[in-house]
Amino acid sequence: MARSSSGESLLSRVVRIYEAFGPDHRAVTLSELAERSDLPLATASRLVNELIDYGWLRRDAQRRVCVGVRMWELASRAAPTLGLRDVAYPIMADLHAVVGHSVQLGVLQDREVLYIERLSAPRAVRNRVRVAGRLPLHATSSGLVLLAHGPRELQESVLASPLRALTPHTITSPDLLRATLGEIRRTGLAYCPGFVDECATGIAVPVRAGGGRIVAALSVVVPNDASARTAVPALHAAGRGISRMFGTAAPARMVV
Amino acid sequence: MARSSSGESLLSRVVRIYEAFGPDHRAVTLSELAERSDLPLATASRLVNELIDYGWLRRDAQRRVCVGVRMWELASRAAPTLGLRDVAYPIMADLHAVVGHSVQLGVLQDREVLYIERLSAPRAVRNRVRVAGRLPLHATSSGLVLLAHGPRELQESVLASPLRALTPHTITSPDLLRATLGEIRRTGLAYCPGFVDECATGIAVPVRAGGGRIVAALSVVVPNDASARTAVPALHAAGRGISRMFGTAAPARMVV
Repeated sequence: MARSSSGESLLSRVVRIYEAFGPDHRAVTLSELAERSDLPLATASRLVNELIDYGWLRRDAQRRVCVGVRMWELASRAAPTLGLRDVAYPIMADLHAVVGHSVQLGVLQDREVLYIERLSAPRAVRNRVRVAGRLPLHATSSGLVLLAHGPRELQESVLASPLRALTPHTITSPDLLRATLGEIRRTGLAYCPGFVDECATGIAVPVRAGGGRIVAALSVVVPNDASARTAVPALHAAGRGISRMFGTAAPARMVV
Repeated sequence: MARSSSGESLLSRVVRIYEAFGPDHRAVTLSELAERSDLPLATASRLVNELIDYGWLRRDAQRRVCVGVRMWELASRAAPTLGLRDVAYPIMADLHAVVGHSVQLGVLQDREVLYIERLSAPRAVRNRVRVAGRLPLHATSSGLVLLAHGPRELQESVLASPLRALTPHTITSPDLLRATLGEIRRTGLAYCPGFVDECATGIAVPVRAGGGRIVAALSVVVPNDASARTAVPALHAAGRGISRMFGTAAPARMVV
């Protein structure tokens, strides 16, 4: 593998360039990019120019650097998330029509929830979830479902780590978190009023593949008021519907 | 830039590895991958192993190589298509609910339509469109809209190239194609019964950004029968709705 004088591979530098982009950094100047990816400006410039030649990066009208359409296309047409998304989408659309707020599908990635699909509408309640965005396991309804059914070592590791509060309602006590995970396993539901935003309630259920293994969490984000519980039956039904389609229709195309 | 003995850069080899994947090749063996990307097996193996370390590729249970979740995440969270998709999605969802068949959004990429979003349902009529998939400009309703409003040089180049028939109804005559492009510019509509599949009619309208520039085509795929024309008014209204949101709400986040 080609390495710089620091012994670092060329590919690791390319990976760092892409890690410098994000939902709030979709377009960055070359010097910001060099700084955010911790690369010398000349190195960043050379790599960026070659990636632009391949359509993997592009420059916008202000000459800022952006992710290229070609890279999105290559990642998306064979996306590891596509099978799960295709199976889940029609049922998510029905749930979204009924609930009227955001509906999302999340998977466990590293120690966070990675959201692979989100349906929303302009009047939906405030929601920090973005497609391809991540949120902490202990603070979100999807994350709690994935953690409750995740590997025991992951649970112990999260329980032993600082539990950051996003609002005064986020679970920050390891004892309460342990009890909550047990309750989620018993009830099949994570109900999280005000954990991420005080105005919103996140509610999540597991999505199971053939054999009962949990591969994703389906969640809704609705206003944090007395009516929030009314979304629960439709969410349960949708989670069961997606799980049933996995068990029968498409086990081989499943993510993870 | 690091180059192999053939003078080819490392990045160009990485790009070729990703080009070996596709909707019908989501998981490939290492030797298939080496063959499809025209790389020596040892080179492919070394690159694949490093890309797996970064989560940019992964191995499935059969040890076949797949695109990694991390690469999808990096490409998607800053996706150049995200602004257009976010603006268009609620209106596409309404159109999908009314029409009951597939609804898609395509942009001009190279000499093809690249579909950046597709809403469908299990009972929708047969449709070859996939998210991040491509189809030829002359054969699809979206492609004809994008070509009709595209650069003059592109039109002349497509008119001078062989026009491949996907069905007996695909336009294959340059004279008919030229007349059809003119009609699309006059009427604001491409109506394509049986062009891609004999059983389906594709219908497309332009999506305009501020200033009237056409940035995408919105299309439906409905059964090829006497009722197909009933989808036209809803499609026209949806195309105007998305264009209006672009003109006012989000010009800076637009794709292209």
